[in-house]
Amino acid sequence: MFTGIFSGGVVKRALDRDVLRIEVHDLRDFTTDKHRQVDDRPFGGLEGMVLKPEPIFRAVEAVRQDGGSKVYLLSPQGRTLDAELARELAAERQIILICGRYEGVDERVAEHLADGEISIGDYVLSGGELAAAVVVDAAARFIPGVVGKEGSVRNDSFCGGILDYPQYTRPREFRGLKVPAVLFSGDHQKVERWRRTKALEKTARQRPDLVKPGALSPEDRKLLEKIPNERTNK
Amino acid sequence: MFTGIFSGGVVKRALDRDVLRIEVHDLRDFTTDKHRQVDDRPFGGLEGMVLKPEPIFRAVEAVRQDGGSKVYLLSPQGRTLDAELARELAAERQIILICGRYEGVDERVAEHLADGEISIGDYVLSGGELAAAVVVDAAARFIPGVVGKEGSVRNDSFCGGILDYPQYTRPREFRGLKVPAVLFSGDHQKVERWRRTKALEKTARQRPDLVKPGALSPEDRKLLEKIPNERTNK
Repeated sequence: MFTGIFSGGVVKRALDRDVLRIEVHDLRDFTTDKHRQVDDRPFGGLEGMVLKPEPIFRAVEAVRQDGGSKVYLLSPQGRTLDAELARELAAERQIILICGRYEGVDERVAEHLADGEISIGDYVLSGGELAAAVVVDAAARFIPGVVGKEGSVRNDSFCGGILDYPQYTRPREFRGLKVPAVLFSGDHQKVERWRRTKALEKTARQRPDLVKPGALSPEDRKLLEKIPNERTNK
Repeated sequence: MFTGIFSGGVVKRALDRDVLRIEVHDLRDFTTDKHRQVDDRPFGGLEGMVLKPEPIFRAVEAVRQDGGSKVYLLSPQGRTLDAELARELAAERQIILICGRYEGVDERVAEHLADGEISIGDYVLSGGELAAAVVVDAAARFIPGVVGKEGSVRNDSFCGGILDYPQYTRPREFRGLKVPAVLFSGDHQKVERWRRTKALEKTARQRPDLVKPGALSPEDRKLLEKIPNERTNK
């Protein structure tokens, strides 16, 4: 599953440049019974299966490196992933991401083994694998030397607290739809101001919740005041 | 890339049961030039590459079915995916998910082709593929007949507006860590009340933002009042 996911993008670049190493471990390799059973029925009478604590404890203990290893359980109950958390994770020496499956994971894992729980958003997935891949991809771009220009990360959506500005490429006119003329003005200051306005406009329209008071410059605030404060998703 | 992702979980079940069909299309198949170029340099002087409008317009027009097709661009600028949006998407006849790559996608796609933009969270990924896989997985569980018991979806985190309660399985005691005794009481009402309390407790502690006023019953509110309102992620 992970082979395809990590065969492109910033993760591949980080792997190629030897600034990231990924190991995938199968919980079944850490069972002790003949059937290599990783799950069992939940106590308290419910359908579905729950991942047992032992294989997970044993797996983490086997792969954990001495000194500076952080263990996270992927779970809808966790701290929500954002650019800030991605940056924090990128600074760790080793992170171990436990991927749940089935109905859930024995709570003793979250309470006594993991340093924390991480959720990639307010929705439920079949398992933690896809979530772990998202965490790795989001964090990899913050490893120094992975994204070519420092500016590329700095200009990312969210990093400045607001969304990205619109991008255009050729053709200048496509089916009557024209690229804004300002982008051909050759006036870099004007282009920058236009981009900032568009980014603020889009943020105010789609994600007003992102705009923290104090995060914007006086110029930004002046621009924002001119933009109607309504949240829509056309 | 998608083969591995969709080889398990609810998506595989939905595919097997013939209630979901997934097609993956390569934008290069919708180019008209010799080099099959899907991206180009951005106008306005910036590093990075931007996906061109034509191949995307042509691809969507080729795969779009008559009557009832929704087109979404995966983008950090979009409406944030949550259980409600996942449920909405599951009710559509056809959804077309446009996966961006590189620095961005020509804005004419978002403005004139897509019905909307979807983001899976406030972080930046290398491309839209992983995000599209997350959208499909999150939505698939809401297609009738995919998740075995109706209850499984209804009891999911977020669906009731709060997080899930803790699950436990064997052994009853693992390295001195015991499963809560109430789960062996055989008293289903007592078990239910304990689960509800634990779910509310976890929500109040980790995600107080999820608790919408009016969403909780008077009994829930009484339980919540006894729980300290602090957000931590141990």
